[in-house]
Amino acid sequence: MPTSARPPARDVVVVGGGIVGLAVAWRAAAAGLTVTVLDPAPGDGASRAAAGMLAAVNEADFGERDLARLNLAAAARWPSFAAGLAAASGRDVPLLRAGSLAVAYDADDLALLRRALALHRAWGLASEEISAADARRREPYLGPRLAGAAVVEGDLAVDPRGAHAALVAALDVARGAPLGAPLDGAAGGTVVRQGAVRLERSPTGRVVAVHDDAGTRHAAGAVVLATGATATGALLDGLPQVRLPVRPVKGITLRLDAGPGLALEHVVRGTVQGRPVYVVPRAAGTGAGAGSGPNHREIVVGATTEERPDDRRAEAGGVFALLRDARALVPGIDEAALVEVTPRARPVTPDNLPLVGPTAAPGLLAAVGHGRNGVLLAPLTADAVLAALTDLTDPTDPGPAAAALAATDPLRFATRGAPA
Amino acid sequence: MPTSARPPARDVVVVGGGIVGLAVAWRAAAAGLTVTVLDPAPGDGASRAAAGMLAAVNEADFGERDLARLNLAAAARWPSFAAGLAAASGRDVPLLRAGSLAVAYDADDLALLRRALALHRAWGLASEEISAADARRREPYLGPRLAGAAVVEGDLAVDPRGAHAALVAALDVARGAPLGAPLDGAAGGTVVRQGAVRLERSPTGRVVAVHDDAGTRHAAGAVVLATGATATGALLDGLPQVRLPVRPVKGITLRLDAGPGLALEHVVRGTVQGRPVYVVPRAAGTGAGAGSGPNHREIVVGATTEERPDDRRAEAGGVFALLRDARALVPGIDEAALVEVTPRARPVTPDNLPLVGPTAAPGLLAAVGHGRNGVLLAPLTADAVLAALTDLTDPTDPGPAAAALAATDPLRFATRGAPA
Repeated sequence: MPTSARPPARDVVVVGGGIVGLAVAWRAAAAGLTVTVLDPAPGDGASRAAAGMLAAVNEADFGERDLARLNLAAAARWPSFAAGLAAASGRDVPLLRAGSLAVAYDADDLALLRRALALHRAWGLASEEISAADARRREPYLGPRLAGAAVVEGDLAVDPRGAHAALVAALDVARGAPLGAPLDGAAGGTVVRQGAVRLERSPTGRVVAVHDDAGTRHAAGAVVLATGATATGALLDGLPQVRLPVRPVKGITLRLDAGPGLALEHVVRGTVQGRPVYVVPRAAGTGAGAGSGPNHREIVVGATTEERPDDRRAEAGGVFALLRDARALVPGIDEAALVEVTPRARPVTPDNLPLVGPTAAPGLLAAVGHGRNGVLLAPLTADAVLAALTDLTDPTDPGPAAAALAATDPLRFATRGAPA
Repeated sequence: MPTSARPPARDVVVVGGGIVGLAVAWRAAAAGLTVTVLDPAPGDGASRAAAGMLAAVNEADFGERDLARLNLAAAARWPSFAAGLAAASGRDVPLLRAGSLAVAYDADDLALLRRALALHRAWGLASEEISAADARRREPYLGPRLAGAAVVEGDLAVDPRGAHAALVAALDVARGAPLGAPLDGAAGGTVVRQGAVRLERSPTGRVVAVHDDAGTRHAAGAVVLATGATATGALLDGLPQVRLPVRPVKGITLRLDAGPGLALEHVVRGTVQGRPVYVVPRAAGTGAGAGSGPNHREIVVGATTEERPDDRRAEAGGVFALLRDARALVPGIDEAALVEVTPRARPVTPDNLPLVGPTAAPGLLAAVGHGRNGVLLAPLTADAVLAALTDLTDPTDPGPAAAALAATDPLRFATRGAPA
């Protein structure tokens, strides 16, 4: 691979410009570090499919106490993260605060819901069972067939595409120059629309640069991997001591333009004959083809969970299942227009916890494997990576967040079953 | 409306560049007439959604003997039309000749199918009932639940987008100049990507020109309307004596990339609990996003029938219903990738027969209202319009086709209930 250009060294090169990578880059740039983000299509990975629920309570399952703790710490950080991002970018980063309704379609689904509620109570999480009638009073667009429901008042949601665009703008502001202008060593961040193909190590084994697919070498004080499932494995090919087991788990989401007739207010999460599904409304959609103005709401329906390669094929069967289950909970989506079908791979680890922090290779940090929680976790991961980059403990919240983050140590898989 | 430019007069100006309009234009240009086609987005109307079944037998219902006769005459014309178009355009215009299977999902659907078969027998049309087991032997991708089936050996299918592209190319060849070059009065045809906004009449009442939305006046010996439902009505605003009642009937079709696992060979048409659905495979898809190569087949699933305005919204409920019914007949589509959802309005007349031929306004001919049969009828309509333009009887087939075409007289609605 020829190295046709040698831009000045940066404090940090972030590989991957999804919401996690950009959150890391923005926090680092805002802290005064020089940052380059490498991504051939920033925000076109898992971030593009994400619905933007910041639902700490519902995303953790039995045996995932550490994930629940992490999600809670991350959800608590979102309001200040969104406010700071709005201020830095000059863009709105609104949080949907109507709360979420967890609904059960039939009696078996209600049994599942009650088990989850009991688990959440044991963990001290706030959620309250309500009757189907009460659920319909709160959200008149719920369907006629519901066995029961629960309300989670504190649940937030954000538009991931809007947040991603704000991060790009904030990086731009931090750098003080037009996006895409040549690197000049100035403080701040820039996004280079190239893919990373190789990590370069010094004779001592330290990761010192990233080579991109245009042949450019990006020298870095530190490299942060914020890559998806496929790129993570490819970039680590030459570093057997770094083990970041991330596999693709495909998910499909749908974007609908609700039109004037469906004024859904709440995030609706549910189980329909055992299958999880969610319906997330927001007022000002940024989805392709969604209408604009007060009469048009974007609705995101998701998500399938498929252990398949990341082929970006939206299987008709998956689309069918999403529509079937979503319309069981919110029949009015029948009249909404389907404007986008988005199949993407989530980067998932064996224990569903992300890999965040220093790896076994000096100079290389991980911010990968956020699975279905990338949007929710991005602010917390960004702060944790910044703390590791600057050798500081997280100044914001050294207590519960630090404890939660301990479970995300990237070395936890390297120490067992690493290649000899 | 300013007339900023005055291209030389053409023998024919065709308003509407869907498959019907282009077929008319190509036949006229090939006959030595100068032709301009006006369309802001040629082929982006009903033609874009069409699946391309040339199924004369199945498309006519009780009481639609005239439509059945017309469809049969049109289907008979397709092989020579496709061969001529391929020769003129230098492009393949392949016809799928595997025949179609009409399948019934449950006992009630089988009763419907048998009624249709009896009707077709009474009309002398060829179709034969076979057992569900025999249907599955012929087409192994049919689902496990079928009440019965019929085979229509002679049914053809064509890729409408490929045929449309070949018509554009053939017009170009006929004109002997690059597409879009300035009009120069040479023989042949050109496509002008502007919308028609007004028909101009001479003091004697003859339609003599079309004005487009760029302010250009297109003088014409004759004007042929090959417009969709909305444009037809708008252009006739100032001509109360011309009554061409065409309404929009929205239909959604889906395009799937079958991938390597679904080698469906036959057009499958069926009824699933009373709802009609079809699944049309072809080898070399031209649909957006369909893979290429021998392992990728395009599959078109259709179609909804909705009496709604042409808003090009693909309602989620319509998409859901198509997937539900198509996977009931061909379960393997679950693994195919959904690559396109195409909502378009069909132009439909009160009696489901098109309006083809001279109208009450001298100089104005109609080629509108082809409903769900536009692709099938295009060759026949083109020949009929050319015969009317040149005051010749149709040289190809003056017998049955002429009789069938008699039912398409545009004056049939003008003579009853026309505005005073």
